Amino acid sequence: MSGFGAGSIPGAGALAVDRWARMAWSRIVEPETVLVRDAIRDHGAVESMQRLLGGSLAPDGRYDQRITVLDIDQARRALDRLQVRVVVPGDDEWPLGFDQLDVPPICVYARGMCELSVTEGSVAIVGSRAATHYGLNVAADLGEGLAHRGVTVVSGAAFGIDAAAHRGALAGGGPTIAVLARGLDRAYPQAHEGLLREIADDGAVVSELPLGWAPYRQRFIARNRLIAAMSVGTVVVEAGLRSGSLNTAKEARKLVRHVAAVPGPVTSVQSAGCHKLLRETDATLVTDAAEVLDVMGRLSLDAVGLARAPVTPESDLDPVARGVWSAVPVRTPADLAKLQLLTALDSTTLLSVLGRLTSLGLVVRVGERWRKVPASRQ
Amino acid sequence: MSGFGAGSIPGAGALAVDRWARMAWSRIVEPETVLVRDAIRDHGAVESMQRLLGGSLAPDGRYDQRITVLDIDQARRALDRLQVRVVVPGDDEWPLGFDQLDVPPICVYARGMCELSVTEGSVAIVGSRAATHYGLNVAADLGEGLAHRGVTVVSGAAFGIDAAAHRGALAGGGPTIAVLARGLDRAYPQAHEGLLREIADDGAVVSELPLGWAPYRQRFIARNRLIAAMSVGTVVVEAGLRSGSLNTAKEARKLVRHVAAVPGPVTSVQSAGCHKLLRETDATLVTDAAEVLDVMGRLSLDAVGLARAPVTPESDLDPVARGVWSAVPVRTPADLAKLQLLTALDSTTLLSVLGRLTSLGLVVRVGERWRKVPASRQ
Repeated sequence: MSGFGAGSIPGAGALAVDRWARMAWSRIVEPETVLVRDAIRDHGAVESMQRLLGGSLAPDGRYDQRITVLDIDQARRALDRLQVRVVVPGDDEWPLGFDQLDVPPICVYARGMCELSVTEGSVAIVGSRAATHYGLNVAADLGEGLAHRGVTVVSGAAFGIDAAAHRGALAGGGPTIAVLARGLDRAYPQAHEGLLREIADDGAVVSELPLGWAPYRQRFIARNRLIAAMSVGTVVVEAGLRSGSLNTAKEARKLVRHVAAVPGPVTSVQSAGCHKLLRETDATLVTDAAEVLDVMGRLSLDAVGLARAPVTPESDLDPVARGVWSAVPVRTPADLAKLQLLTALDSTTLLSVLGRLTSLGLVVRVGERWRKVPASRQ
Repeated sequence: MSGFGAGSIPGAGALAVDRWARMAWSRIVEPETVLVRDAIRDHGAVESMQRLLGGSLAPDGRYDQRITVLDIDQARRALDRLQVRVVVPGDDEWPLGFDQLDVPPICVYARGMCELSVTEGSVAIVGSRAATHYGLNVAADLGEGLAHRGVTVVSGAAFGIDAAAHRGALAGGGPTIAVLARGLDRAYPQAHEGLLREIADDGAVVSELPLGWAPYRQRFIARNRLIAAMSVGTVVVEAGLRSGSLNTAKEARKLVRHVAAVPGPVTSVQSAGCHKLLRETDATLVTDAAEVLDVMGRLSLDAVGLARAPVTPESDLDPVARGVWSAVPVRTPADLAKLQLLTALDSTTLLSVLGRLTSLGLVVRVGERWRKVPASRQ
């Protein structure tokens, strides 16, 4: 088929910017499209988009229909209205783990206070939708225990184990991140809209699918790799033998993340997938949040290629940095104004020191606020 | 102290025979006495006994009181009366696993149809006395499933998991072996005398402690090493963090036997010991009898240094041997007369062929009777 002129796409001028070219790409192709991954890797998102619109990238016209309905202006307005940001490679908050994926997301959509890079010290909790009372309790306890220890809990906001893990994390006072298999504006499950709003307050809701896109089986499967990549390890709480959470565990293993599973009664089919993981893979058995941290701590930041901070890192800081580090709260993140008040430093110096503390793994940035990384996590 | 004359011991003439010297030793020293292990290893049981009675082995007189009350005649009469045999190294039924122990038993006392060497293909099932309904059900299912597959179940006849495993094995139609921490005439637990009689009918009840000796803490601990040594692997069904069954698992590991554990709810303290084993050691998670066989099969007879039989071994037999093999029943063992009737062979030839089939792992000798080893076990 002949190519499109970019001029026929409303707001096409924005396609000269990598971020909006990637956003446009995400509205055209399904996740994990190898052809497009290769094109973007070799030529960048902008030039690849020109090739697509010129008819040379996919001459069979398979994307024509989606190009026809593309409206960059409208899409950007909808994102603004819903306070959804587009996160692309090169952004500070782009999770390094995404780049380890066989087919990284072209971009991800995010809503909420929490920067996505916080996931470099987070743990995924996943499991069956059809969970038992036992599984729900354990997932909530794990979520709460991890949040209480300063660990961000990542999950998929599905019914059952996912929702229990998010709710537990919220009860534990920590930010939690939901990774969806649909556009952020689509209500699915409908019953979880309240939960997702609560998650976005302090944490984040994320998807690689653009607004308006619905969840399909293949999109759920693609989503699982993002959950695995956004955490140092995955804990499966309850899973039947065909549960999608076993797929998340497999993705985590492929990414050399740690995989842990919670056992249950051998008489429960909802624990059969966990037992299979524990029997047939090197997954570690865990029974509580402390054991999860023990397991994940062995890999933790090393797993995503970051330097590990020294054992008592604050003792190596200069006096100014130590002063800033002391001022940063442990639990509730403080904003710049609050920290200026406490440290009496100018904002340039303060931001520079906070950046250094963040890169040392002593402080974590949450949106425009900062808090300490607990000693057990350093 | 000055030595005893052997003449002052009733029935002392029998002490010139290894079996009775060992029996006398077992009435004098506690299990796992290193001094006596060394003496017997270096000089044999008979000469070591002469040294003891002569006052040169333990000149501090620590055993004098027990020597004073030693009555070989009376002890042998009591054994005969209760149909208890003394099994010593060199006997056909002496389990090879005993010789792998740091301190092997000097002898063991046994009652029941089953030869103790059958344990070279058996599996130990152990666990807490204070078991849950869940644990008791799983232990009984495992016992029945293993017995049904031709595996002899070894356990300790205690309340809880042990008794459930024995009862399950009996329900599965297989022989089961109880290893006690007391003399075979002592009723403990009293409530299990009926169970022990049933076990002895087709299986065996065993102890390294002589008649009349009571169970003490240290004797329970010593007993655990025999359970581990009498099986190719140990399965822990339920165990609190301080359960003695974890000690049995430790002994099994020391003997390079396989250790498996059944998981349970992480909220159950009775499963905490199993979860600890699965987390912190190379124990394998098992959920049913098939999985136990899968695990144990990897080690099975290799673990105790026996050659593994070929895949279809009976096809390699000569016609006479194949005829005998065909005549041996799978379930209920047949005695020599029955097999002579079926094969029309003279007893010398028949015994020789049965010995060969036994050493090939195709047939197992149970007292004075023989039965096939099921194909899954060969």
